[in-house]
Amino acid sequence: MIAPNMATMLAFLTTDAGVPAAALKNLLRDAVEPTFNRVTVDECQSTSDTVAIMASGAAGDLNARQAASFSKALRAVCESLAYQIVRDGEGATKVLEVIVRGAESPRDAHVAARAVAVSPLVKTAVHGGDPNWGRIVQAIGATSVTYRPEKVTVRLGKDVLFTKGAPAPHLDLARLAEAMRQPHVTLTIDLGAGKATERVLTCDLSREYVAINADYTT
Amino acid sequence: MIAPNMATMLAFLTTDAGVPAAALKNLLRDAVEPTFNRVTVDECQSTSDTVAIMASGAAGDLNARQAASFSKALRAVCESLAYQIVRDGEGATKVLEVIVRGAESPRDAHVAARAVAVSPLVKTAVHGGDPNWGRIVQAIGATSVTYRPEKVTVRLGKDVLFTKGAPAPHLDLARLAEAMRQPHVTLTIDLGAGKATERVLTCDLSREYVAINADYTT
Repeated sequence: MIAPNMATMLAFLTTDAGVPAAALKNLLRDAVEPTFNRVTVDECQSTSDTVAIMASGAAGDLNARQAASFSKALRAVCESLAYQIVRDGEGATKVLEVIVRGAESPRDAHVAARAVAVSPLVKTAVHGGDPNWGRIVQAIGATSVTYRPEKVTVRLGKDVLFTKGAPAPHLDLARLAEAMRQPHVTLTIDLGAGKATERVLTCDLSREYVAINADYTT
Repeated sequence: MIAPNMATMLAFLTTDAGVPAAALKNLLRDAVEPTFNRVTVDECQSTSDTVAIMASGAAGDLNARQAASFSKALRAVCESLAYQIVRDGEGATKVLEVIVRGAESPRDAHVAARAVAVSPLVKTAVHGGDPNWGRIVQAIGATSVTYRPEKVTVRLGKDVLFTKGAPAPHLDLARLAEAMRQPHVTLTIDLGAGKATERVLTCDLSREYVAINADYTT
């Protein structure tokens, strides 16, 4: 889990803005869904993951313009915290951002992105710096999402790895290896089946993950 | 995957018994479901897993008694091959057998057993020899299967690790450590919710799994 000795991810947010409880709850839910709920280290869900927000109201009530800024700032804070979770993942040496585009539905986009992000074969390939398109398309192929094989495209950063159902004809391996060495690796997969997009953040799978989780006794 | 350079598990079975094609197909399906379809190394499904059987008929047609023996033998062969797959899993040092009992439905039993068998936290704990009941019940708790927390029991071999929703009061840690050191570790989880049973075989997750899958480039 994220913190195996505690088995818990706890985030407490505070603000002095005056935001009614019901509105605050909705704003938090909107901010948590694309951030905390789109990160995974090992896909082992803790029994007590919690994100709580408290508003003291000391700074007075928000007007409409302030409310929009507040919502944006809350999202940015959640995004930053969620990012730090994967960057600090057990044994992580890199953050892997998986973006799925061209899905038939947001659900399909999420399922496909998560399938790639949780695949131990993808996570070890990223750890080893291998631009292994086969493992990426396999992870999606094993799900039930809709995709058009002849239109599927996979990009590593801005470089096309796989296009029209086949590996890209002219791969610059030195450039790809350089992209894989970065602390943030981005894979973008277009399913060619629609317009929905989703994103999941994860980290690579290293020997250190095994060491952290195998070499202690409860 | 089981064999990452081939991305394929291929099993070919032959017999000289005379079994009509339709009957042979049914017998094979019955034998494959509880054997090949209940093993996982890393839950990455290959694009071309195949089990094929061919009957020459050279030994003549089967009578009813022989048909029963044939069915039993076919199941035993599939069981043995499936077992060898996990034992030879990438980096595997142990086989982990996860048995779920007391489930509301066979589907629930399968989902729960598979959730435990694919959990990297369970697989690393087994690798490190840690009888970590928390990771086992967490894996089940994160699924949607029906269970009665106050009735859940977890056994390692014959020893009770967890009972009535809490760790067993008198754990013989030396005995548990000994059970964990064996090449075959059995976890039996009773959900206390019904009568269905299923079983999934897997292996532990080791640094060697990461090495095998991270340290080569396609």
